[in-house]
Amino acid sequence: MRTPCRRFWRRLKLKGIRHFVILLGTPRQKVIPAVTSESKTPLLDTIATPEELRRLPESKLRQVADELRTDLIDCVSKTGGHLGAGLGVVELTVALHYVFNTPDDRLVWDVSHQAYPHKIITGRRSLMGTLRQEGGLSGFAKRDESPYDAFGAGHSSTSISAALGMAVARDLSGASNRVVAVIGDGAMSAGMAYEAMNNAGALDERLIVILNDNDMSIAPPTGAMSAYLARLVSGKTYRTLRDTAKTLTNYLPGAVRQGARRTEELTRSLFTGGTLFEELGFYYVGPIDGHDLNHLLPVLKNVRDAKNGPILVHVVTKKGKGYQPAEHSEDKYHGVSKFDVITGTQAKSKANAPTYTGVFAESLLKEAAEDDKIVAITAAMPAGTGLDKFQSAFPKRCFDVGIAEQHAVTFAAGLAAEGYKPFCAIYSTFLQRAYDQIVHDVAIQRLPVRFAIDRAGFVGADGATHAGSFDTNFLAPLPGMVVMAPADEAELVHMVRTATLYDEGPISFRYPRGGGTGVDLPTRGEALEIGKGRIVREGGKIAILSFGTRLADALAAAEELDSFGLPATVADARFAKPLDHDLVLRLARDHEALILVEEGAVGGFATQVFQFLSQAGLMDSGLKVRALVMPDRFVEHATPEAMITQAGLDKAGIIDAVFKALGEQAKRTMHA
Amino acid sequence: MRTPCRRFWRRLKLKGIRHFVILLGTPRQKVIPAVTSESKTPLLDTIATPEELRRLPESKLRQVADELRTDLIDCVSKTGGHLGAGLGVVELTVALHYVFNTPDDRLVWDVSHQAYPHKIITGRRSLMGTLRQEGGLSGFAKRDESPYDAFGAGHSSTSISAALGMAVARDLSGASNRVVAVIGDGAMSAGMAYEAMNNAGALDERLIVILNDNDMSIAPPTGAMSAYLARLVSGKTYRTLRDTAKTLTNYLPGAVRQGARRTEELTRSLFTGGTLFEELGFYYVGPIDGHDLNHLLPVLKNVRDAKNGPILVHVVTKKGKGYQPAEHSEDKYHGVSKFDVITGTQAKSKANAPTYTGVFAESLLKEAAEDDKIVAITAAMPAGTGLDKFQSAFPKRCFDVGIAEQHAVTFAAGLAAEGYKPFCAIYSTFLQRAYDQIVHDVAIQRLPVRFAIDRAGFVGADGATHAGSFDTNFLAPLPGMVVMAPADEAELVHMVRTATLYDEGPISFRYPRGGGTGVDLPTRGEALEIGKGRIVREGGKIAILSFGTRLADALAAAEELDSFGLPATVADARFAKPLDHDLVLRLARDHEALILVEEGAVGGFATQVFQFLSQAGLMDSGLKVRALVMPDRFVEHATPEAMITQAGLDKAGIIDAVFKALGEQAKRTMHA
Repeated sequence: MRTPCRRFWRRLKLKGIRHFVILLGTPRQKVIPAVTSESKTPLLDTIATPEELRRLPESKLRQVADELRTDLIDCVSKTGGHLGAGLGVVELTVALHYVFNTPDDRLVWDVSHQAYPHKIITGRRSLMGTLRQEGGLSGFAKRDESPYDAFGAGHSSTSISAALGMAVARDLSGASNRVVAVIGDGAMSAGMAYEAMNNAGALDERLIVILNDNDMSIAPPTGAMSAYLARLVSGKTYRTLRDTAKTLTNYLPGAVRQGARRTEELTRSLFTGGTLFEELGFYYVGPIDGHDLNHLLPVLKNVRDAKNGPILVHVVTKKGKGYQPAEHSEDKYHGVSKFDVITGTQAKSKANAPTYTGVFAESLLKEAAEDDKIVAITAAMPAGTGLDKFQSAFPKRCFDVGIAEQHAVTFAAGLAAEGYKPFCAIYSTFLQRAYDQIVHDVAIQRLPVRFAIDRAGFVGADGATHAGSFDTNFLAPLPGMVVMAPADEAELVHMVRTATLYDEGPISFRYPRGGGTGVDLPTRGEALEIGKGRIVREGGKIAILSFGTRLADALAAAEELDSFGLPATVADARFAKPLDHDLVLRLARDHEALILVEEGAVGGFATQVFQFLSQAGLMDSGLKVRALVMPDRFVEHATPEAMITQAGLDKAGIIDAVFKALGEQAKRTMHA
Repeated sequence: MRTPCRRFWRRLKLKGIRHFVILLGTPRQKVIPAVTSESKTPLLDTIATPEELRRLPESKLRQVADELRTDLIDCVSKTGGHLGAGLGVVELTVALHYVFNTPDDRLVWDVSHQAYPHKIITGRRSLMGTLRQEGGLSGFAKRDESPYDAFGAGHSSTSISAALGMAVARDLSGASNRVVAVIGDGAMSAGMAYEAMNNAGALDERLIVILNDNDMSIAPPTGAMSAYLARLVSGKTYRTLRDTAKTLTNYLPGAVRQGARRTEELTRSLFTGGTLFEELGFYYVGPIDGHDLNHLLPVLKNVRDAKNGPILVHVVTKKGKGYQPAEHSEDKYHGVSKFDVITGTQAKSKANAPTYTGVFAESLLKEAAEDDKIVAITAAMPAGTGLDKFQSAFPKRCFDVGIAEQHAVTFAAGLAAEGYKPFCAIYSTFLQRAYDQIVHDVAIQRLPVRFAIDRAGFVGADGATHAGSFDTNFLAPLPGMVVMAPADEAELVHMVRTATLYDEGPISFRYPRGGGTGVDLPTRGEALEIGKGRIVREGGKIAILSFGTRLADALAAAEELDSFGLPATVADARFAKPLDHDLVLRLARDHEALILVEEGAVGGFATQVFQFLSQAGLMDSGLKVRALVMPDRFVEHATPEAMITQAGLDKAGIIDAVFKALGEQAKRTMHA
C-alpha cells in the first residue's frame, strides 16, 4: 500500500527541490539540518524522526515543543497556510509521537490542517518551505506523502470512522498496535463523528480518541455539544494528575465488577460530567491541559496501555497557542497568508476586484433588507461564505448550524416548506456532504431552497480535497433543480436577485474562490430569465459556449482565433439547467465547431448539452463538438491559475481544442 | 405551497378512482364510508378528519385506536406494504391528532413508512386500497398528497432537521403553532439526527421530538445509542403518570431558578438516566408506554403547552403491536406482500430466478470462504442486502454499523487502508448519504473499497424516494473509480469475483431489485478484464450498447429490428469506467446509429461515451447517437415494469429510439 509514497518522493526529486533528504524508511542516512549555524532550534535540529524523539528523556520534551513552535511560526510565515490549529497541538503532537510507536501505532488527524507540527517531526521538516505549492507538501495529511500519515483528510469528522476501521483490521489480523484519532471539538458537531462513536461504543473496540477541545474550529463554536464541552471544562478545573491517575488505575485492571462500576460511574459523572461519552460506550478521561506535558504524558501512557474498549481523552488547548497575534485573533489566523513574525502583519493579497464571496454577501444583504422572508444558513463558515455580514445585520435570520451540512440543507427545506426563502451558502466540496438531503428533502419535494455554492472549481493551495469539481454533476441531473453559474461578479449579483424571486423549486448558483474580473457592478441585480443564456460575442465559424467564469478565457481565445481567420461566437450559458435550447440550437446550426467549457468534472454542463444535441438529432449533423472539463484525476495543490492551465481550461487550452476539433489539416492551413 | 396537493386530487379524479371523497379543505361535504353495513369499525367510520376525532370524548379513543388497527391490518393485507411500523404507532397517531391541532400544528414523520394510520385518519381512508400502486397513495408521507403531511420522507433521520426549520419559521413569523417530529430509535443512529439535536439544543427552539423506541428499525438495533435507550427503559419501569406529571409541572412554570434546576437535573438523571439528551439541550420526558392512551394523552398535553425549549418524549412501543404474526416476526412484517389476515400467510412472489441480492450474497460467501481479507459492511440492512448470510457464516467479519452510511464508507476505507477487502453493500439511494466520504476517504486516497450497490434503477412500489437513479452519475466522474453493472445474475457472479481480486483502488457494481433473468449461474465467478465490454449479438446497421440489466430488452429489440431489415449489434458495456474505448470505436465506426441504454439519470454511462466520442472526433462523423436514460422527473410508485415502460427503457422504447435516430423517412420506408 505504500508505493504511492515512493512516487511522491521521486516526483520531488525530479523537480530538483534542494536540501532534499530521504528520511523515511532509511533512518541510517544522515540528516542535513536546513538551518544556519546559529540555530534557534538546536534540539529540534537533531530530531529527524519520531524514533529519534523517543530516544530523548522526558525532561527534554518541553524544549522540543518550544522549538517546534518556533519552527512552525517561522515556516508558515514564509509559506502561508494553517497556523492557529497547528500551534494549538504542538505539545500534543510531541507527546503522541513520544508515547506511541508511530507509524506502527496509527495516528489519524481529523481535518488535518493541524498536522504541520506532525509533518515537521516526521521527516518532512526540510520540505516545509514547499508547503501547499505545486509539487510540494500538501497542507493536509496524505497517505502518499508519508507512512506517518495513516489516513488522509481535508474534510472534518472522518477520523473516528477511519480509526475504528483500522482498529478492527488490527484485531482481525491479530496485531497489537494502537490506533489514535485526534478530533477537534468543532468536528464533533458533524453527525459522522457521532455515527462513529455510536458504532465504536457498540463494538467495544480498543481505540483512543483525543478530543482536542480548543473551543474554536474555524468560526466560534455553535451547537449544544460545544456548550456541553464548555460545561465539562468550567464545571471543574482540570482534574489533578493524581485524580486522573487514580481513576485510570481503577479502570486498567480490566473488567470491573458490575456493582462497583455503577457506583464509580455515578460518582465520576457527578464530578466530571463525562456522562454523554460514557453513555455512548466510551471511557472518558479529562479534561486535561493540552499544553502541559506533565499531564499529557502520563495520561497518554495510561490510555496506551489500556487493554480494551474505546477511550476518549478530553484535552483542552488554545488555538494559536504561544504566538500572540494568533492567540488574539483566532479566526484570522486559521488560514494565513505569509506574515511578518514580529508584528504578525499578513501580506496583503493584491486583489483589486472584489471577491465573488464578497459580492454574493453584499447582494444578499441588499435583497434581505427588502424581503424579510430571506434567511441565511451556513455550516460553520460564516466568514468564509461572507455570511458574517448577514449575521451582523440580521442576527435572527442567520443560522450557523455547525459542521453539519446534512442538517443545514434539511433545516433549510423545513424553512422553505413554511414559505421562507432560505439561502444555503456552502462550499461546493462541503455540499457533497448533503447530497442525499438535496435529492430527498429539497428536489423531490420541489422546495425553493437557494444554494449559494462558493469555491466552485479549482481552489489552489488547499488542493484536491477542497476543489469544487462535482456540484454541477450532482445537481443538474435532479429533476426540477435550476443550476446557474455567473460568468463574472456582475452576473453573480443578477443571480442572487434571480434566486430571490424564483419560488417554484430549488435553485443554485456556483462561483469560484478569489477575486472577480473587475467589471462594474450593478447597484441592484436584475432577475434573469430562467433557462436563457446570452451571446457575448458574434463570430461565424466557431462557437464557444461557456458555463461560469471561464468566459473571460473564452473571450480571450476568441480574440486570438481572429488572427487565424477563425471568427468565434462566444456565449455565456448562465444555466446548465434548464438548458437554453434555442441558444444551443443556434450555435450548433450556424457554426462548424462547438466548444463547451466549464470548470467542473465530466458529467456536468456538457452532459446537458450532449443529451439535448443527441435527442434533437444534431449530433450527426457533422458539427464538431468538444467538451472541456476538469481532467480525470485529482489535481493537486498549486496556484488556481496553474491548475486551470494543467486542466487545459485556459485560453491556450480552448484554442487548442478548436484546432483539435477542426483537425490537424485545418491547423496547418491556419498557420501557413 | 399547497397547489401540488390539488394536482394530486385532480389526477386521482381523472383516473376515475371510485369512492373518491373530497375530504380535505371541505369538511362540510358528507363522508361516504367505504365499508359494508356490518362494519367492524363503526366509530372509525364516523371520523373523516382529525377535526372530527378531536370532537370525541377521550373515553372513546381506545375504541378508535382498536378500530384503526383492525382497518390497517385489513388494508395492508390487500395491498401489501409497511405493516409493523404502523401497527406500533396506532395509539400514538390517535393521541397526536387528538392533542395537537393538525394540520396547523405540524406533524413530521421520520422515514414515514409508519404513516399509514396517519393517512387513514387524515382523509385518505377510502384511498388506502390504492396504496403504492400507480396513480394511488404513496407509501410515505408526501406534501403533494395532503396538507396533513407537513414534510415528505423516505430516508431516515431527517425529521428533526425539518421540524427545527419549521419551528424557526414559526417564530420568525410570530405564529404560535407547535411542531412535532416523530422519530424511531433506529433513525437515531444516523448522524443527521444528532446534528439536528445539537442545533436545536443550541437554538433552544420550542420543538417536540417524540422518540418512538420500538427497539427495532428494520433489522435488530445496533450501536451504543440503542444500548443506551435500552438501559433507560430497563433501568426503571415506566414512570408512573403521577411522577411524570409532577416533573412536568416543575418544568412548565417557565424559567426555573438556576440552583433548583441543577439539583433537579441531577436527581432526575439518577432516576431516569435521561442525561444524554439533556446534555444536548433537550428536556427529556419518559420513558412512557406508547400503547397506553392514559399515559400518552396527559404527557402530550403537557408538552404541547410548554412554552420554550426543545423537548424529547421517549415513548416505548412494540412494532407490529396487536397483530400476532407481526409481533412475533418483526423483520418479516416490516414490509409485507398481500397476506391472509387470519393466518398471517403472505402471498408468495412468483420469482423463478434467484434475486440479484441473493446471487450477490451467495457469490460473496464463496469468495470470503477462500479469502479471509474479505469483510462486509451494511448500514442497518443485513437482510435487505443479503449480508445476513455473511453475518451467520463470518460473524467477526461482518459489520452492521446502523443507519450510518457516512460512517460505513469511511470505516470501510480504514479497513482498506490496512489491507482488508471491504465490501460495502448499500442501496443506491442510501449511498447518496455517503457521497462525500466516497470522494474523500475512498477515491482521493485510491483505497480499494468495494461498493455493492443494490436496488439500482427503478424499485417499484417504494417510488421516487427509493429509486436508484444517480449512482453511476456520482461515481463515474470520480478519478480512479471503477464502475460496473452486470447485465444478468451470471455477470454479477463474475463482478463479485472481479471486485475481490481488484486491489488498485475503489470499484463498484450496481444491480437491480428483484429477480434475475434466470440464466445459468456459474459455480464460480471469473475475473473480468477491467474496462472491457462484450459484443452479445452481431448485426450491421444499428448498434445498441447497454450498461446493466436493460440488456435483455436490448436483445429483444434487436430481434424485432431484424423484421424491419435493421440488423442490430448488441453489446454489453459491463464498465462505465474505465470505458471500453475499442468497443465504442468499433460500434461507432461500423454502424449507422448507436443507441445507449442505461437505467439511470442523465450524466451516467452515456456521458462517458459522449465525452469519449467527442474527444476522439467521432461525434461529427455522421453517427446517429441517442442516449436512453431515466426521464427528467421523479417517477412515482408503480410496478418496476410500468416505470421502465414510462421511462422508455423497454424494448418498445429502444425500437422507438432507433427509428427516431434514423429519421421519420427511414421509419416510413421500413414500415412500407
